[in-house]
Amino acid sequence: MLALIGLGLDGTEISAKGLSYVAGSDEVFAEFYTSLPCVDMAEIERIVGKPITVLTREDVEERELPLERARTCTVAFLVMGDPLVATTHISLAARAREDGIPLAICHASSIYSAIGSTGLMLYKFGKSASIVYPEKNYFPKSFYETIVQNKKRGLHTLLFLDLKADRDIYMNPVDGMRLLRAADEETIVSTIIVASRIGWKSEKIVYGEVSELSSLDASFFGPPPHCIVVPGEMHFAEEEYVELFRYG
Amino acid sequence: MLALIGLGLDGTEISAKGLSYVAGSDEVFAEFYTSLPCVDMAEIERIVGKPITVLTREDVEERELPLERARTCTVAFLVMGDPLVATTHISLAARAREDGIPLAICHASSIYSAIGSTGLMLYKFGKSASIVYPEKNYFPKSFYETIVQNKKRGLHTLLFLDLKADRDIYMNPVDGMRLLRAADEETIVSTIIVASRIGWKSEKIVYGEVSELSSLDASFFGPPPHCIVVPGEMHFAEEEYVELFRYG
Repeated sequence: MLALIGLGLDGTEISAKGLSYVAGSDEVFAEFYTSLPCVDMAEIERIVGKPITVLTREDVEERELPLERARTCTVAFLVMGDPLVATTHISLAARAREDGIPLAICHASSIYSAIGSTGLMLYKFGKSASIVYPEKNYFPKSFYETIVQNKKRGLHTLLFLDLKADRDIYMNPVDGMRLLRAADEETIVSTIIVASRIGWKSEKIVYGEVSELSSLDASFFGPPPHCIVVPGEMHFAEEEYVELFRYG
Repeated sequence: MLALIGLGLDGTEISAKGLSYVAGSDEVFAEFYTSLPCVDMAEIERIVGKPITVLTREDVEERELPLERARTCTVAFLVMGDPLVATTHISLAARAREDGIPLAICHASSIYSAIGSTGLMLYKFGKSASIVYPEKNYFPKSFYETIVQNKKRGLHTLLFLDLKADRDIYMNPVDGMRLLRAADEETIVSTIIVASRIGWKSEKIVYGEVSELSSLDASFFGPPPHCIVVPGEMHFAEEEYVELFRYG
């Protein structure tokens, strides 16, 4: 049996249901290569009350260790955020279903709903997008098209920042804003929200002009994870709330 | 101090962090009027290990009980799903911030990310919308406009169904599909996913033709909560996954 268990935003938001699955498991695996390595493993082991084996991408995607072990024993597989967000986990769940391995999903907090901490209404978010690092002769602008399309409908845009966790590379919000400004030739983006470590003790939400925030030192926003929100049309109550996070 | 704590989708997805806030609180409140009353209160009290006082809409919005008590003691306020999704909770958080009452938010699972259990990719969802009950001489169609706009961009649409929890009224998926078909004069919606009790033990995901599913008896889908997804363009991996839920 395979239980796919979300650890939530900061690793301490595993659910009571998830904890009960860990308690009943023969083996506890975790992976952090789809998210970030700066979680406190000792703290997570203390919370779940069992030792955890951290798997690499090869362990999961090539050796299919969680799936193989789940054929004969009860496996708890811990992942950051909510499971079934990353393609890797969806594939794993699909494989388990196909092979007739009993599957349990334990949901947990995720940035897709926790971004409500900014005070923006979730139902007013349009498609989300990722700002990715440009490569030689290639500057991917599809994230900007998403903002433009959402803006036309008055919708907010949640922007993820590129990460290559297995190489310890995380785009910082200042680099993200610079790429956004480079794409934004018509200057349709004026104000912006930088949401850092949502759900963590060190959570930091900053609202302000993109021209101003993008000139700050990256250290101002602290370590990852970060995301950026481009607000669409704001209701009075939303405006009032985001003002609580105004820079300066 | 006020801790706004999500109970997650089924009430058992409160986080380890949330549990620690409950443990340290002087008083534990909960409200269910923004969601649904069919949670197992005894089970939730067993999980959190403390007696819970369930508040009415008047207690929260007029008497502002959680806020008043939080001025002098440590209050844990439990709500279904992720906090800061419902306007009521955002207002409460805003009031706490304005009045200088220390505020903690404990995120939990929410349909906004758990809908990933359908196998559809979250970043391909557009704006969400609600199918609401028509009133005399008034048939609100804005949810349909949202579907049309999302479809144009190839995006999926998450549809909530009307609920009036304080009057124990929950739109069932069959009524929801009928209202959708009535609005859909150009028949742009063919296949649909009905997602029932996502994250609950009795979770049921059904994929099929809206013409076929809307002719089923409402009891087929079981008790609330329900939501409906209108898929946009599906990637091959998404198609393969939703086929696991094909009706018939």
